[in-house]
Amino acid sequence: MTSMFDFNSYLIAKNQQINERIDALLKPDASRIVSAMRYSLTAGGKRARPVLCIGAAEAVGANAENVLTVACAIEMIHTYSLIHDDLPAMDDDDLRRGKPTCHVAYDEATAILAGDALLTLAFQVLAGAGSEYPYSRLLEVILMLSHAAGYKGMVEGQMRDIASEGISLNLDEIEQIHALKTGALIQASVLSGAILGGGNAEQIEHLRAYGKNIGLAFQVTDDILNVEGDPALLGKAVGSDESRKKSTYPSIMGIEESKEFARKLVNDALAALNVFDSKAEPLRAVARYIIERKR
Amino acid sequence: MTSMFDFNSYLIAKNQQINERIDALLKPDASRIVSAMRYSLTAGGKRARPVLCIGAAEAVGANAENVLTVACAIEMIHTYSLIHDDLPAMDDDDLRRGKPTCHVAYDEATAILAGDALLTLAFQVLAGAGSEYPYSRLLEVILMLSHAAGYKGMVEGQMRDIASEGISLNLDEIEQIHALKTGALIQASVLSGAILGGGNAEQIEHLRAYGKNIGLAFQVTDDILNVEGDPALLGKAVGSDESRKKSTYPSIMGIEESKEFARKLVNDALAALNVFDSKAEPLRAVARYIIERKR
Repeated sequence: MTSMFDFNSYLIAKNQQINERIDALLKPDASRIVSAMRYSLTAGGKRARPVLCIGAAEAVGANAENVLTVACAIEMIHTYSLIHDDLPAMDDDDLRRGKPTCHVAYDEATAILAGDALLTLAFQVLAGAGSEYPYSRLLEVILMLSHAAGYKGMVEGQMRDIASEGISLNLDEIEQIHALKTGALIQASVLSGAILGGGNAEQIEHLRAYGKNIGLAFQVTDDILNVEGDPALLGKAVGSDESRKKSTYPSIMGIEESKEFARKLVNDALAALNVFDSKAEPLRAVARYIIERKR
Repeated sequence: MTSMFDFNSYLIAKNQQINERIDALLKPDASRIVSAMRYSLTAGGKRARPVLCIGAAEAVGANAENVLTVACAIEMIHTYSLIHDDLPAMDDDDLRRGKPTCHVAYDEATAILAGDALLTLAFQVLAGAGSEYPYSRLLEVILMLSHAAGYKGMVEGQMRDIASEGISLNLDEIEQIHALKTGALIQASVLSGAILGGGNAEQIEHLRAYGKNIGLAFQVTDDILNVEGDPALLGKAVGSDESRKKSTYPSIMGIEESKEFARKLVNDALAALNVFDSKAEPLRAVARYIIERKR
């Protein structure tokens, strides 16, 4: 089975399911706000978080359809954070995935509101999925996602990230920022799929470890790609971390040691999946992909 | 009983309960983000929405304690919307309730993130209240509040409000903007209290009508106060609607007709409460207060 698994076909199939569900959850209409929300939501993201949510559900024996709505809600939270991070008052980025960022394509007020609306829609979609899941598990997932996205998670990570520009950080501080800014939501994506897919306590604990390791691995490779990635493949400029004097894994550990560290994290993530059978193959493939990816 | 009801004492008592619960839900700490969130959340708001939520719960026979957490979550949603509305890219207001707005007291990035974090915390607090309410009613309330706050509610109202600056609107268009921008969340505040207070379908329908009428009445009087209010009592400048060439009730109907319209709306709101006994006295007092208020 392992050798038969075709990750590329899997990603194409899941992406299609995700994109169709997103279209159903946020139908195109004539309003400027929906246009801006959909502009960023359909701007060619990798759908890493929804795929992780689906992969975790599959690992515990459910299928993609079972968690598709929740997976899309998570992508909305992720997209809102990108729109706000890109704003002039924050990272002031003009390009994202090779396209003008939301405030460039629309305007700043619209971008702020499109982010707000996507965050709000995520919770609307989650609360509206009440007929699909046991209520208690659904509320547990809403609680977990809001915690991961909030002032003790993603928002605090962005606060520290902004505050640390031009300041030298040590590895512990960098790891903490990453854990808050991206790690918490990535881990919560995995756990959402595991919980709503009906996973038992032991499975959920293993997937928690998996999620933590790949979350950090993802960020370390992001730092690496910012040094030696191909701008054409990334859809954004490289070298921005260095020009902003940001402390990153490569800037502290060196590039080769960063790659070694990413490999170790991915191996730890794979080890956490040892208790699962071939149904965890998608999650294994995601872990391996993280260190091979070019964008 | 009616003549015995002391609205002032009631407001003081409820405000204390609300503020204590807010302190418990968002404890002060050393972080800048919590400081900014609390700055705006404790900036002397009237707590109109939490009081409406509590009043509706009381009208259907519950008590304030039963819905206090939800009432505070609604105030977080309201506060987030004020912080973002005040941003330079939106209404660019420097003063709110007589104090510097969040982006002036902190900075723009912090204000954007403090708003984001308050919105997220509202849903965290709601989902975390699962042990206090029947799950299905709680999910119904989360769904209703997210809808009221989202791209078909408050966010769309703000989009239209910004787009309409300098443009002449007719009364229907103004009413629609108000219904979206402030009416939906005010009505949802009333309904949240009614639903989680255990109201029956008939009670909920009457409170829906009450909420709709006071929501609009509140906005009409806001427009009136922007013309003839006392800046010292309001904590902000007056005349800003006129200088921005905003279409308002006074600018279209005239000031006396606007006052008459507000009175009519309040009378309709009071009529919707006819089926309730003296336990609806707080809601009646809120309705009367709307046309008497100076701030």
